[in-house]
Amino acid sequence: MPSATSDTLPHPLDPLSTGEIESAIGIVKKAHGDVFFNVVSLHEPRKAEMTKWLEDTASAPRPQRIADIVVIAPGGKVYDGLVDLADGKITKWELLDGLQPIITMEELVAVEHICRKDPKVIEQCEINGIPKEDMHKVYCDPWTIGFDERHGSKIRLQQALMYYRPNVDDCQYQYPLDFCPIYDAEKETIVAIDIPKVRRPLSKAAPINYHPAGVESAGGYRNNIKPINITQPEGVSFTMSGREIEWQNWKFHIGFNYREGIVLNNITFNDKGTVRPIFYRLSLAEMVVPYGNPEHPHQRKHAFDLGEYGAGYMTNSLALGCDCKGSIHYLDAEFPTRAGSVRTIKNAICIHEEDSGILFKHTDFRDESMIVTRARKLVIQQIFTAANYEYSIQWIFHQDGTIQPEIKLTGILNTYAMGPDEDTQGWGTQVYPGVNAHNHQHLFCLRIDPNVDGPNNTVFMADTVPSDAPVGSPENYYGNAFYAKRTKLTTTGEAKTDYNGDTSRTWDICNTSRLHPYSKKPSSYKLVSREVPRLLPKEGSLVWKRAGFARHAVHVTKYDDDQLWPAGRHVPQTSGEPSLGLPEWIGNGQQSIDDTDVVLWHTFGVTHIPAPEDFPVMPVEPITLLLRPRNFFASNPVLDVPPSFCSTPSQVAANGKGVTEAADRMSRLAFGEEKANG
Amino acid sequence: MPSATSDTLPHPLDPLSTGEIESAIGIVKKAHGDVFFNVVSLHEPRKAEMTKWLEDTASAPRPQRIADIVVIAPGGKVYDGLVDLADGKITKWELLDGLQPIITMEELVAVEHICRKDPKVIEQCEINGIPKEDMHKVYCDPWTIGFDERHGSKIRLQQALMYYRPNVDDCQYQYPLDFCPIYDAEKETIVAIDIPKVRRPLSKAAPINYHPAGVESAGGYRNNIKPINITQPEGVSFTMSGREIEWQNWKFHIGFNYREGIVLNNITFNDKGTVRPIFYRLSLAEMVVPYGNPEHPHQRKHAFDLGEYGAGYMTNSLALGCDCKGSIHYLDAEFPTRAGSVRTIKNAICIHEEDSGILFKHTDFRDESMIVTRARKLVIQQIFTAANYEYSIQWIFHQDGTIQPEIKLTGILNTYAMGPDEDTQGWGTQVYPGVNAHNHQHLFCLRIDPNVDGPNNTVFMADTVPSDAPVGSPENYYGNAFYAKRTKLTTTGEAKTDYNGDTSRTWDICNTSRLHPYSKKPSSYKLVSREVPRLLPKEGSLVWKRAGFARHAVHVTKYDDDQLWPAGRHVPQTSGEPSLGLPEWIGNGQQSIDDTDVVLWHTFGVTHIPAPEDFPVMPVEPITLLLRPRNFFASNPVLDVPPSFCSTPSQVAANGKGVTEAADRMSRLAFGEEKANG
Ligand SMILES: [Co+2]
Ligand SMILES: [Co+2]
Repeated sequence: MPSATSDTLPHPLDPLSTGEIESAIGIVKKAHGDVFFNVVSLHEPRKAEMTKWLEDTASAPRPQRIADIVVIAPGGKVYDGLVDLADGKITKWELLDGLQPIITMEELVAVEHICRKDPKVIEQCEINGIPKEDMHKVYCDPWTIGFDERHGSKIRLQQALMYYRPNVDDCQYQYPLDFCPIYDAEKETIVAIDIPKVRRPLSKAAPINYHPAGVESAGGYRNNIKPINITQPEGVSFTMSGREIEWQNWKFHIGFNYREGIVLNNITFNDKGTVRPIFYRLSLAEMVVPYGNPEHPHQRKHAFDLGEYGAGYMTNSLALGCDCKGSIHYLDAEFPTRAGSVRTIKNAICIHEEDSGILFKHTDFRDESMIVTRARKLVIQQIFTAANYEYSIQWIFHQDGTIQPEIKLTGILNTYAMGPDEDTQGWGTQVYPGVNAHNHQHLFCLRIDPNVDGPNNTVFMADTVPSDAPVGSPENYYGNAFYAKRTKLTTTGEAKTDYNGDTSRTWDICNTSRLHPYSKKPSSYKLVSREVPRLLPKEGSLVWKRAGFARHAVHVTKYDDDQLWPAGRHVPQTSGEPSLGLPEWIGNGQQSIDDTDVVLWHTFGVTHIPAPEDFPVMPVEPITLLLRPRNFFASNPVLDVPPSFCSTPSQVAANGKGVTEAADRMSRLAFGEEKANG
Repeated sequence: MPSATSDTLPHPLDPLSTGEIESAIGIVKKAHGDVFFNVVSLHEPRKAEMTKWLEDTASAPRPQRIADIVVIAPGGKVYDGLVDLADGKITKWELLDGLQPIITMEELVAVEHICRKDPKVIEQCEINGIPKEDMHKVYCDPWTIGFDERHGSKIRLQQALMYYRPNVDDCQYQYPLDFCPIYDAEKETIVAIDIPKVRRPLSKAAPINYHPAGVESAGGYRNNIKPINITQPEGVSFTMSGREIEWQNWKFHIGFNYREGIVLNNITFNDKGTVRPIFYRLSLAEMVVPYGNPEHPHQRKHAFDLGEYGAGYMTNSLALGCDCKGSIHYLDAEFPTRAGSVRTIKNAICIHEEDSGILFKHTDFRDESMIVTRARKLVIQQIFTAANYEYSIQWIFHQDGTIQPEIKLTGILNTYAMGPDEDTQGWGTQVYPGVNAHNHQHLFCLRIDPNVDGPNNTVFMADTVPSDAPVGSPENYYGNAFYAKRTKLTTTGEAKTDYNGDTSRTWDICNTSRLHPYSKKPSSYKLVSREVPRLLPKEGSLVWKRAGFARHAVHVTKYDDDQLWPAGRHVPQTSGEPSLGLPEWIGNGQQSIDDTDVVLWHTFGVTHIPAPEDFPVMPVEPITLLLRPRNFFASNPVLDVPPSFCSTPSQVAANGKGVTEAADRMSRLAFGEEKANG
């Protein structure tokens, strides 16, 4: 029976265990006294060291367990540190200047309590018609301040987006307040309030709610959805060894950290007995959600949800039969608390299989001889809540070698107050009376560290274009000639490339030393991504400066152990001058990325112009992309998946003798009475 | 218990029944003697008449049942006719000049038999090294000839793409032959053979096969996929009345014809008791698959699979537990045979529900109060085989008002012979030794006849763009301003529009007379489509001339009862001079499409540069797009879907008292032993 087992020693890429976190905290406390722990996380093994170990786990030195530490010491001093867990030693301890580390959930939660008691906030609420005794009905979503040039980066700040929630169970986002307090995290006090020139009174609209009482009062639930049961009576088709999973020729390690959430490492595919490396590391490495309303202070709404809050820190504890159906395996996550204990998020990652429709099918029209084979997929999922929004991040593995990152957006729109006669001027949509949901983009940066048949890879841009030869010319007489034009990206500067929907542009990650025996093309994985809006904040804008990664659909850099996060290691309150992360690493763009260890950074997403259908909670909107093997396998790699049905011409000629009949026996006709004549 | 029932009288949009087809054929035979029946299909009621009846089915006149007839009479004379079935009268009988009707399966099947006996074909096979006695191992895929200027349109022709299949059960496409006979369907003879200047010998490569014997000899089947069972013990959530379906507020009629396959009519949504019209008619109306190899005669490979063969005529008989899993309802299809009898395709359409993951979710980060609701979708599917390729056409309905047409490509690449030292020159890929799979596009044309809150609609093009105001200006100080720029398409000329990935371009089908009470924007359905390559054959090329619909992503026309198929009614052997269908209807482009009954034609698809992974059979490649309600519903229309779990802040404060707990009870942990400590 397949089972989840683990060695006594952690895998070098396993997240720090509770014990390891406690140990690191103890070492730091001993040396530096009481500090606030922002980060205690695995400092990943250096790639060279890790690669050696992977090649020979028996005799190569096992990479050490090292904790990556960020603390805030009294006086708001921020330290970056490293703790060697085996030696119990601090190997690095560095005071940062003008950089603010990630904002933890505990820091976020604190803001609301302070707001409710702050006299200036209470005064503003009274102006909005909320009596002092109703301050417990005032809520705030504490946000990163982004960057506010009036306040700079030295003081640790948050902005408080304010809401009135007359009933504790109401949807929080339907009575926004029009002012915005600024919170000093060190002093734990409100240091300023941004008040708009034109005030917007508190909405008097009737509440709209998605909770049962709200639905019942609006007519009740529909009762016409019959259950669909999904069961795996013989168990799942994957096995786990610690955090390493094997499924349908795939094998990889499932990591998790406070920042990126799920991290997949050492992804290989067993190709008829040969274990072939494909990706060294895959993760969602950063994101930014710029809002498009130019009125002050809305320009500050452009959260870097990963760099400023963390997809790990914000992740949900998932529930069986709610977030997923079927047979599910869960992995937990452990994080430090600010004070230095450990909190566990149960079921932070869910792993399950799904039927995936038809894998392939063909019928010979002559005799109706036929093959049909069903597909299976493996889903590794986390869901995180970023204040109003939820993001479901799915890493979907297909049997044919395709990896499909898929993101589902749901949750609630960020909203702002709207006066009764106000015009949104096109910067937002009134989704409910008095509720203005501003235009915004969700831009995600996927970090792809390829290992396509080895570490030395080259990225090509591929555009399908017509032949240059004109119609009527000998080379293109009928005008139908077209081909895939491949442009090699040889330097980091050249690799700053944008999407082109017209040419169905893709990017091919190639191993140019390994040509396919038939096609003579390099072994490759193709990035196929179609939801690639441009960054809409203009060149030179605050967002453009801070989110360098979002300026292009693709950047490629030479691998560097310390380049994990494309907006920089510490993102809150960066000014963008200089632009941290990718622009800093790329510099003058002269570095060669030809046939070497490279990293591809892909920015994709959606531009969201809100509509009333998105309120008071949004039906899921999915975004997806593919990493597809092309010229990688000798032939179709799923021919050996057993078909549901297969008949050959000779079997058809023999009246069906010998056909393969393995249709799913649990399927039924929808209406039983038809069975007789159906 | 829900069931499939039907009235005695057919719905006016029901396909012709067996009896009706027989009756029409009898009437034609009586008047015109023995002819070949190419088409005997429902002549759909005129919209004005149909609309009146739909508004008052009790007293408005019921639209008559009329058969649309195409026959080929002796001498190759083609007639278009109409038969009034109630009166038993032929109301139209028209001799066509220089037009060839759709090619039926029977016509296709005939070609191979003729080829095998033709001395000139036998001679070419011998040159290729195939002895005369092996002619039963020679196969041909009969294709529409497209248009060949040497042969014109007066003679009914097909081209025969030739293959050698040494073993009857082999994949047919691995030993292509290099010559191409041309078949005269009237004379039933080969009238010419196109022979390339440079000959390509028959490949000597070992066979590669996907049938069980082939897989067994290559190492056998994998045995590590555990079953996933999908069951609906309480039955399905939809009901059928004849061919009208009701599901989750949706109601529509499911038609089917020889040409387009599935046709959905009179699509409405019950919005809290108000039945709101959305689409009058939706179908896949045409497609073209241009190949990109300029060498003669490959320019002829650009099949219009719908107009030249028919998605109905080529449709598969679907099998329970193979093509779909769960509880399935099937609909059959009836078509005439050439000689004038009726053939039935059992299970031509399958209808079923699937679990669709999370519908919406939100967690309050303060107290982890939470709602999570699962989604359901309804899938109406057909699969057709166009010689080598298969296309699964799915019409997916979501609970939130979204309609998602999805096409899955599978089957086998069209292949051509490749010499041992030949260079593909970029026009194709050697996917297996001696097998050149040419570059090609799959371009589909969706016909959208909207009825968004009534017949008078207007189409806008929407682009998300930055504000024109520069960074630092008072209107856009921080540079973050962006909005959806909407351009009204007022004439058919203006409406010829292309895709723009950079601005995430969409097209909004609006009812400008019905403004949303909150957003003040018109009630609309938004076309969101991201796989929209340009037509790669150049302007003025043969394909460009014949496939006018593919020149732009979107065309909009004023509704006309006779404008159903955008490459024209009779497509085979059209020269493109003049371009039939859309270019002809649009003419000088002056016709107003503002606030009137319009039709939107959307061309989308993929450019396919083959790879060895696609051979000898292709793993499914999906293409999808969305028709989304925006500013159509007052608010989120799925709030009344019962949640799997819901807790409110007050319930959390009461230690969970009163929470809604309706998680799927069939879900399980993957590894049982973890349950105790999990
Ligand atoms: Co959004
Ligand atoms: Co293709």
